[in-house]
Amino acid sequence: MENTITSRNRTKRMHERAAYDEATIHPILDAQPFCSVGYVFDGAPYVTPTMQWREGNHIYWHGSSASRMLETCEDAEVCVNVTLYDGMVMARSAFNHSVNYRSVMAFGRAFKVKDVADKEAKLKTFVDKLYPGRWEILRAMTSKEVKATMILGLELSEVSAKVRQGPPCDDESDYALPIWAGVIPLHVQTLAAIDDPRLASGVIAPEHVKHFKIG
Amino acid sequence: MENTITSRNRTKRMHERAAYDEATIHPILDAQPFCSVGYVFDGAPYVTPTMQWREGNHIYWHGSSASRMLETCEDAEVCVNVTLYDGMVMARSAFNHSVNYRSVMAFGRAFKVKDVADKEAKLKTFVDKLYPGRWEILRAMTSKEVKATMILGLELSEVSAKVRQGPPCDDESDYALPIWAGVIPLHVQTLAAIDDPRLASGVIAPEHVKHFKIG
Repeated sequence: MENTITSRNRTKRMHERAAYDEATIHPILDAQPFCSVGYVFDGAPYVTPTMQWREGNHIYWHGSSASRMLETCEDAEVCVNVTLYDGMVMARSAFNHSVNYRSVMAFGRAFKVKDVADKEAKLKTFVDKLYPGRWEILRAMTSKEVKATMILGLELSEVSAKVRQGPPCDDESDYALPIWAGVIPLHVQTLAAIDDPRLASGVIAPEHVKHFKIG
Repeated sequence: MENTITSRNRTKRMHERAAYDEATIHPILDAQPFCSVGYVFDGAPYVTPTMQWREGNHIYWHGSSASRMLETCEDAEVCVNVTLYDGMVMARSAFNHSVNYRSVMAFGRAFKVKDVADKEAKLKTFVDKLYPGRWEILRAMTSKEVKATMILGLELSEVSAKVRQGPPCDDESDYALPIWAGVIPLHVQTLAAIDDPRLASGVIAPEHVKHFKIG
């Protein structure tokens, strides 16, 4: 299904920052595995932080089959937000301070991935997207573990991106003021991996540990 | 008001990761200015990324007076989530992979800060919490700008924290396997500030730019 612009995903303000095309949306989803899933339970809003991964025109997230978030989201309307914070934008007035970011909002009805082989294939994709080649070196997943894991999916058919990059936009009359303005770039840094204290002797970190990155 | 444990903020799973005390909750809110605000509009869930700041037993967030998120949240139930992602936790089985994080969920009815002097004082606190001393060197806020800015607040009276730190927890029988396991620590790095291309000549970045950090 193509992306459709509705009253939910149409950007209300700052239209110049909005985009609705895959070429903008997919790279943001692929660069940021962390997301926030919004749902309604007993009429009240909930936001749960979790991880998402994209396969074609769908995103998926997972967790324990006992998770209230996953149980509530199944066949229900959700809003998934994925955001990368790229910089603190400092202007000459408080009012014009801002943030550089890349953000995606995906709306729709979440569905449960039920087929066991499909579930396992999707978990493999999730692991290998984060850590290429890791699935095959891990202890194989048991059927009990697959059963204890729930996966939800969402078609990317009502999605928008919003992006702000670049220097501050000050009022024209403020540019001459002797006030520092600019951007502090932000970046998710991955530090040197810490071996598990119980690591079997002689085991070294594979390449996918050294190459892991977000953003 | 004291924090109350209700059906909303009581942790459903992983109770050992939960906390309800200020000594756990406040430092997380103070370390992470970015948040996700969940709300319900026309019966459907929305999640909007924005910034929050804490003053005593309240958090606040702000934006344009024309923002749908802010208009909808006023006097409505919201869920504000604040999360710091501290590390990728890599186990010997896919199932035991995890994430190290510090997260706060705050529930309740958001209120609008209406008094003009109060609004301006709160914006000063927000700016100076991020960038100590910045408010007084900025071009003064105009009454038009204060009017165009909406601030919402939420009392921290129905809040929980959830924290995971440390190495992976593998099945006992998996520890002997020759599979690398451990943690890739994550950290929000602030890179060297970029001067605005239109910076007045001779203006240098103040200390609060060099000292800015998240986490």
